[in-house]
Amino acid sequence: MSKIEARLAELGLTLPPASAPIANYVPFTITGKVVYISGQVPRNKAGAIWPVGQLGAGVSVEEGQAAAQLCFLSIIAHAKAAAGGDLDKIARVLRLTGYVNSATGFGEQPAVINGASDCAVAVFGEAGRHARSAVGVAALPGGAAVEVEAILELV
Amino acid sequence: MSKIEARLAELGLTLPPASAPIANYVPFTITGKVVYISGQVPRNKAGAIWPVGQLGAGVSVEEGQAAAQLCFLSIIAHAKAAAGGDLDKIARVLRLTGYVNSATGFGEQPAVINGASDCAVAVFGEAGRHARSAVGVAALPGGAAVEVEAILELV
Amino acid sequence: MSKIEARLAELGLTLPPASAPIANYVPFTITGKVVYISGQVPRNKAGAIWPVGQLGAGVSVEEGQAAAQLCFLSIIAHAKAAAGGDLDKIARVLRLTGYVNSATGFGEQPAVINGASDCAVAVFGEAGRHARSAVGVAALPGGAAVEVEAILELV
Repeated sequence: MSKIEARLAELGLTLPPASAPIANYVPFTITGKVVYISGQVPRNKAGAIWPVGQLGAGVSVEEGQAAAQLCFLSIIAHAKAAAGGDLDKIARVLRLTGYVNSATGFGEQPAVINGASDCAVAVFGEAGRHARSAVGVAALPGGAAVEVEAILELV
Repeated sequence: MSKIEARLAELGLTLPPASAPIANYVPFTITGKVVYISGQVPRNKAGAIWPVGQLGAGVSVEEGQAAAQLCFLSIIAHAKAAAGGDLDKIARVLRLTGYVNSATGFGEQPAVINGASDCAVAVFGEAGRHARSAVGVAALPGGAAVEVEAILELV
Repeated sequence: MSKIEARLAELGLTLPPASAPIANYVPFTITGKVVYISGQVPRNKAGAIWPVGQLGAGVSVEEGQAAAQLCFLSIIAHAKAAAGGDLDKIARVLRLTGYVNSATGFGEQPAVINGASDCAVAVFGEAGRHARSAVGVAALPGGAAVEVEAILELV
């Protein structure tokens, strides 16, 4: 078992299926050692988007953090595919962009996206520390509360 | 005629002029084989931004898709310049980010941005398949309904 | 004194402290010659986020431009750290993404983000010309009026 897979198990984290989008785009592309991962929305065990709604208007910061973690687990699932099935081939998380479905006036996007950032460091250690932007958007696909995209580096 | 130019003609698609922004930024930059293309808003034949307004509040999904296709045609026009005039030198569309001017509660950003993604694959084939994020924003330059930015790879 | 430091002094611009985020992310990451800088919000001399609020609903375009310049000065501060303390090692500003906290219907995001773009060219000259996207978001961290992120190239 790879070091990162062992770490996921230790943390009690399960990767979702790395399902392909039903459209003319793909979960990831690679140029050189850089991997671009498509924006991920949070999904529950049944595969449905969850949570739905806006931060600052019904969805709590804690739910938003759980959502951001779910997004990052989907990112890891696609990263594994991008790395040929071996997560130990991920050298670094280079950047995360976190889009938070936000009511006007809500300003805690950083706290919400920490759900993804903390998961990155819990799983990848120092290699999980990344550049980041967190912004508040008006709406997201399927009403998702959060969307996170990533740029990673392969070894 | 290049393979991609022939494909554009076959699809009946015409590239807009690759006009430079009137500001201290440029349509594209290149590092190594990677090209960053500035965010493009949709423009009609007369060069005016069209459509203007929000999805979920007046602008239909079909109009949004047409807008996303117009954005992608502008991306191709700048890509051609970035590739020294030869579109066959575009190796891959690496990533698109699609910003959809969205009323709160509108959640069909993926369907809207398919207007760009479908165009990418129609024109570039397998090389047009890209990583993607689609988000709903509160407002866009000049009231544009859609804005799309791109990262491409040169051969 | 480096050429760029001299230029900053000539322009009367002072870099803010390149303080690290209090979270599991970092101000920048580097892959090859490419530097990803985290999204920066504008801060006044006291370190507080300023201006707070929305363009099109209280914050003027001029204040937004000042905010965008402050964001870009923070980007330079982190770029200096990324370049080992020598700003002359920055080869190029590759891309800026400018997020403008916007009321629905506000469409002057390009004018606002020119506050960052003009600063980039004033400081770095031709090397400061960059690809750019400017979008209007519903909300930003701490209520900031503007957030700007950057991708740079090292020599």
